[in-house]
Amino acid sequence: MPSAAGRGQGQDRRPENEDSSAADDYAKERYGVSSMIQSQEKPDRVLVRIKDLTLEKADEEVWVRGRIHTSRAKGKQCFLVLRQQQFNIQALVAVGQHASKQMVKFAANITKESIVDIEGVVRKAHQKIGGCTQQDVELHVQRIYVISSAEPRLPLQLDDAVRPEVEGEEDGRATVNQDTRLDNRIIDLRTSTSQAIFCLQSGICQLFRETLIRKGFVEIQTPKIISAASEGGANVFTVSYFKTSAYLAQSPQLYKQMCICADFEKVFCVGPVFRAEDSNTHRHLTEFVGLDIEMAFNYHYHEVVDEIADTLVQIFKGLQERFQTEIQTVSKQFPCEPFKFLEPTLRLEYREGVAMLREAGVEMGDEEDLSTPNEKLLGRLVKEKYDTDFYILDKYPLAVRPFYTMPDPANPKTSNSYDMFMRGEEILSGAQRIHDPQLLTERAKHHGIDLEKIKAYIDSFRFGAPPHAGGGIGLERVTMLYLGLHNVRQTSMFPRDPKRLTP
Amino acid sequence: MPSAAGRGQGQDRRPENEDSSAADDYAKERYGVSSMIQSQEKPDRVLVRIKDLTLEKADEEVWVRGRIHTSRAKGKQCFLVLRQQQFNIQALVAVGQHASKQMVKFAANITKESIVDIEGVVRKAHQKIGGCTQQDVELHVQRIYVISSAEPRLPLQLDDAVRPEVEGEEDGRATVNQDTRLDNRIIDLRTSTSQAIFCLQSGICQLFRETLIRKGFVEIQTPKIISAASEGGANVFTVSYFKTSAYLAQSPQLYKQMCICADFEKVFCVGPVFRAEDSNTHRHLTEFVGLDIEMAFNYHYHEVVDEIADTLVQIFKGLQERFQTEIQTVSKQFPCEPFKFLEPTLRLEYREGVAMLREAGVEMGDEEDLSTPNEKLLGRLVKEKYDTDFYILDKYPLAVRPFYTMPDPANPKTSNSYDMFMRGEEILSGAQRIHDPQLLTERAKHHGIDLEKIKAYIDSFRFGAPPHAGGGIGLERVTMLYLGLHNVRQTSMFPRDPKRLTP
Repeated sequence: MPSAAGRGQGQDRRPENEDSSAADDYAKERYGVSSMIQSQEKPDRVLVRIKDLTLEKADEEVWVRGRIHTSRAKGKQCFLVLRQQQFNIQALVAVGQHASKQMVKFAANITKESIVDIEGVVRKAHQKIGGCTQQDVELHVQRIYVISSAEPRLPLQLDDAVRPEVEGEEDGRATVNQDTRLDNRIIDLRTSTSQAIFCLQSGICQLFRETLIRKGFVEIQTPKIISAASEGGANVFTVSYFKTSAYLAQSPQLYKQMCICADFEKVFCVGPVFRAEDSNTHRHLTEFVGLDIEMAFNYHYHEVVDEIADTLVQIFKGLQERFQTEIQTVSKQFPCEPFKFLEPTLRLEYREGVAMLREAGVEMGDEEDLSTPNEKLLGRLVKEKYDTDFYILDKYPLAVRPFYTMPDPANPKTSNSYDMFMRGEEILSGAQRIHDPQLLTERAKHHGIDLEKIKAYIDSFRFGAPPHAGGGIGLERVTMLYLGLHNVRQTSMFPRDPKRLTP
Repeated sequence: MPSAAGRGQGQDRRPENEDSSAADDYAKERYGVSSMIQSQEKPDRVLVRIKDLTLEKADEEVWVRGRIHTSRAKGKQCFLVLRQQQFNIQALVAVGQHASKQMVKFAANITKESIVDIEGVVRKAHQKIGGCTQQDVELHVQRIYVISSAEPRLPLQLDDAVRPEVEGEEDGRATVNQDTRLDNRIIDLRTSTSQAIFCLQSGICQLFRETLIRKGFVEIQTPKIISAASEGGANVFTVSYFKTSAYLAQSPQLYKQMCICADFEKVFCVGPVFRAEDSNTHRHLTEFVGLDIEMAFNYHYHEVVDEIADTLVQIFKGLQERFQTEIQTVSKQFPCEPFKFLEPTLRLEYREGVAMLREAGVEMGDEEDLSTPNEKLLGRLVKEKYDTDFYILDKYPLAVRPFYTMPDPANPKTSNSYDMFMRGEEILSGAQRIHDPQLLTERAKHHGIDLEKIKAYIDSFRFGAPPHAGGGIGLERVTMLYLGLHNVRQTSMFPRDPKRLTP
């Protein structure tokens, strides 16, 4: 229990700048460095949340635990900003009945980011406190104990890390570059922006699963260590596996499809996906989180497309409803237009997309894949014409899709496949899969794939397989694009790319 | 669309045993092999679920899609059992107004496990149909089309795969051994037992997250490819990572703790955990799913223990409430006592456990770890004395726990650590973690760990770290032990062990 009385356990240090003896200090029991919390006691003290410190609590005495966000000493007073996740409050230590000048000095010398327990009285602020989320009240400190000290030199300053970058002009104030952020991720993750991004990301996962469970889907767990690289062996990480070697799964697709063949009918999974691709772009990671769906359908793969699109719409709506605070917090540092979508989701055919691009002056063939710049341009054209940041492009050319994609029965050059886009960037790729072993064999041969290597895959369909379709969503991309951010490393807690394996 | 009229697309095969010309067959449009479903059409036909075929639907005409589970021809009739996941119904094709003798023969020749669309009339059964879940009704078939054919020779029979194993006696009926099951997992997963096991497992994940989200936890995603083996490098898989090498995470613990240091306060994650351990036992896998929790606490790690135990209790209760059908289905093949637990959860200290074992004749030292047989014995003793299958063993000897475990301030030989048990087997291991870099360094030295290798870990605590505790739960073990199964491979869809990497 953090009290001066508990200081006899060897963890205690007296503040260095103390300039009078403890004997003269009438407040000496009211501050100090607490002994390390080792679960010595179970006090019945209630710690109040900073976000709950409002005018309703005015004149109440409370205990609060928080970090020292900033500290400013001024004569006989010390103003602290106490932070807890996205929320903060001003706290005042002033020489008087409860605090001695030694206590004020002690408070002023606590290093930024240290964790403290404070007992104080909630007081109405004379004027709005601009820099804090709790603008109407401040905390008048009666006791203050350090629970965990931060080292004095921080690798980055939180205030710098949340400062909006001013494009094109230098306003003289520091910002923090991405590598410094990522090298010191535990500090960077403490900013209000990071807190908001990852709370919202947790919400995306929750909404994804909630929606699918409601739709009757079953969650599955698929292995990440696999014996063969299903799509031919490019871009795959190798693992030493006892006396042999194995691979890291580039997607759970084969396993999702096996579950469909095993009668689970509608399945989803959330898990890591590994790509040994040497791409150093704003949107590629070597390890990311896949939100994967696979579903047997009755007669038409649009049954599946509609379910996937509706799942994304339910996510967008849920975020708007439940994460408005987080969206606002992020937009303070990274301003952007609110994310727009239609119900039902706009579905264009690939040829329509190509026509829109051509009308805008782009030259491209009917069977050519979309380049990244063309994807983005098409996103802008669609936004102008339909006022939506989310749409589906359906019926991709057969030639640009993997061998297991079901050909379009109405047109030999197209396929039953689709991508979904947010703000002009692809977030999902999917298709009706071929469920007939004979056609699958033909298509694999056509693609020059070694049949021996995919024998297990093809054999999965030999004992009765329902028609099915699915797709995989990149969690980090959805988070990035929903919030209008510009780098997928901002939405991966501990990103992995060809050059980064730490922390 | 599966109709005889749609057969002209080259996918069609006439049944081989047809013994009269199509011209003589008045039912020729009413059966056949459908063309492959390539999303040619969007018929507005509704397919009714087999579980919804009850007396309420008597005399209605319905369309159903299902697998041929069994088929038995008898004169002018053919009895089919049509299966859909855990449910099945008897279907009758009989020569008459709708079916010709050619049609009955066609139906009788459809291979087991093929998927068919049937149009039929729901009729009240004259007597309960014993072998089916839908005992009160049967389906009188008017049309039958094969949607996807199974090869005639199945690698295992579903009826054999759900047969309870009769211990100690040979009843002459086949069962299926585990390797055959796992080698042919997509067939084995179709059994009612497997369907039930994995629906229940999906429920465990959902209940775990639901409960924690309600308690204010945030879901995090932690990287699986890591640069250093945090616990010294034993039992870790190596990955080739571009021009260097990396490892697969043995647990998300470091990252969970970093999130605590980054102010997320209460976090959980669900994801794969990798152990390169050459253990070939009933409860070890090289890749399993970890349900991980980490939480900052105020004063005592029991705050965390209580939250974890309550989360498990909410899972047990949720399973009882929502998955009774699945529990019953599994118990038909694997009978077992219902899972018992107390509220609040029983918490014993390690020394109490040791005392109970000694009383039962076991000789062991105070600081000795529990062997697997002793764990099981203690589980039985606890069950006898307290009538619970779930309990916590608290305050393990410091000597048998990892270096980052917080020592007990009241006793130098014990620690603030705990395991949780289901039916006498460990399902969770956890502890208060040391959040002070100085003590952490001391303890690492004491364990002979190379400080250079864990520098990043120790440095995580240098910028203010709240006291915290947590633990990791093995999903497959919880599923296995809740259902009273005896091998963790039964509760992993595609298990990985030192000898198995496929399918």
